Amino acid sequence: MTTTFEDVVAARGRISKYAQTTPVFTSSTVDAMTGQQVFFKAENLQTTGSFKVRGALYAISKLMENNPDVPGVVTHSSGNNAQAVAWVARRYGLPCTVACPSNASEAKIRAMKSYGAEVVFCEPNMKSREECAAAICAKTGRALIHSFDNVDVIAGQGTMAMEFLEQVPDLDAMLVCIGGGGMAAGVALTVKAMRPSCKGQRDANDSSYVATVADGIRCKQVGKHNMPILCENAEKNVLTVNDTEIIDAMKFIWTRMKLVIETSAAAPVAALLSGKLAQVAPHLEKVGIILCGGNVDLNNLPWE
Amino acid sequence: MTTTFEDVVAARGRISKYAQTTPVFTSSTVDAMTGQQVFFKAENLQTTGSFKVRGALYAISKLMENNPDVPGVVTHSSGNNAQAVAWVARRYGLPCTVACPSNASEAKIRAMKSYGAEVVFCEPNMKSREECAAAICAKTGRALIHSFDNVDVIAGQGTMAMEFLEQVPDLDAMLVCIGGGGMAAGVALTVKAMRPSCKGQRDANDSSYVATVADGIRCKQVGKHNMPILCENAEKNVLTVNDTEIIDAMKFIWTRMKLVIETSAAAPVAALLSGKLAQVAPHLEKVGIILCGGNVDLNNLPWE
Repeated sequence: MTTTFEDVVAARGRISKYAQTTPVFTSSTVDAMTGQQVFFKAENLQTTGSFKVRGALYAISKLMENNPDVPGVVTHSSGNNAQAVAWVARRYGLPCTVACPSNASEAKIRAMKSYGAEVVFCEPNMKSREECAAAICAKTGRALIHSFDNVDVIAGQGTMAMEFLEQVPDLDAMLVCIGGGGMAAGVALTVKAMRPSCKGQRDANDSSYVATVADGIRCKQVGKHNMPILCENAEKNVLTVNDTEIIDAMKFIWTRMKLVIETSAAAPVAALLSGKLAQVAPHLEKVGIILCGGNVDLNNLPWE
Repeated sequence: MTTTFEDVVAARGRISKYAQTTPVFTSSTVDAMTGQQVFFKAENLQTTGSFKVRGALYAISKLMENNPDVPGVVTHSSGNNAQAVAWVARRYGLPCTVACPSNASEAKIRAMKSYGAEVVFCEPNMKSREECAAAICAKTGRALIHSFDNVDVIAGQGTMAMEFLEQVPDLDAMLVCIGGGGMAAGVALTVKAMRPSCKGQRDANDSSYVATVADGIRCKQVGKHNMPILCENAEKNVLTVNDTEIIDAMKFIWTRMKLVIETSAAAPVAALLSGKLAQVAPHLEKVGIILCGGNVDLNNLPWE
């Protein structure tokens, strides 16, 4: 069982009631700096502040269709996925419990609670997250909505690439950050289907799980559904960026483009502005960058 | 000599090559909080980071038409107007000098220099600004582009209201901040012409010139061209907000709407969220708010 472009098309129709078609921005400053035309898809302006609501909407709508009597949903997440699942669950009238790493940001915890989720804390590693979520599912009979390793979630995330290629049809590359690989897999398979000549370029953070400022991409283990899709559809190079490059890119986007983006969203910007993308792919003319989210704690910024 | 709606229409055509049609955003959170439909016009996403480029474009294009041999332009400004005039002057190949108050933010000074302006510092009061700019004009033969007290600048700023009413035709009120009154006058006369039933509501900061965090609206003296336009076209109530309300509103827009706005832009948001607008105008259903700029120094934020 895998995710296909037909699943992305189906997801697009299903989620359109609640998910936004996010705008695409350009910057003459960035174009002058890079010698390329760069397009930024502002998923930070998406409902709940990140792209995650796309996957959550499709996965939960499919769940309700296949199992109308499900007593609720459970997920594990450091923040954005939990906010998205909680927001969608409330729309469907479903109770929601989140297994949340104890080092998640306070702003994100507040937000998931504000959307009605019950929050249970676990250790900040994938094993503890998965065990904690599985135990809640076993006790309550609720269904797990995995934050990335789920074929419907991958299809939902693919819708952002479909939109992006409708907005800018002739992109030469689309640059996304990768954590567990839900967005990267959905984007890669969609790009390959709609525009085979376009590269789906991944970038990742080279820091270890606990140390990186990019709290949305701390996970270093790509999901089992995600890896084969990425191997088949994405470029083989994974660009790595460090925390300083991420923070510089984040401040640049805030200051010059007036968009509040979070650290994870700054990672592909860092790959672009540091010249690392140009090193591996020197002849790209039109580059698309997905600004995946904008959920930040203004009282705990990663500088000064 | 005053500014009419015909001037705004003329300005709209003239500036469209360089000024952006800025997007309008909504927030279900804000609508739920206020019980109104609220529309935010994102002039923070405008070229040079604020609405000021509209007035500068129209005033300098008129200047070039009427005086093709003018040797350059001079303006006085704490930041956004200087950036805009410098940016436009460079487009027209004109030298530009800015009389800049000595307490202007470093980020804004850097930006005006990056657009090619020569910066001359003066005391942080209107008298010193005007004297300094007049002396430069006398010495160089360059023309003064006043930041607000100029009929063409007022017409240019009016174009944002024209766009806003095309984007949301049935607004009941448009809320703008006021410093010298260039934007407020341009918006008020345009709103009155296009939609007489709509209120042009001004809000102002109640702090004194030097103390307010809202560095774009420190000026408390409305221009001589601006005042009669405001008296004829805008609501008589001026709402006042304090620095705490402004900072809370600024953080709210950054956190919830993911838009970087500056303190001046947060003033009308503060008037809305503090309930002060509802006190003077209780039955508004559709409220438009102009987010006038987004030029901030991330290393010198007005909190913590």
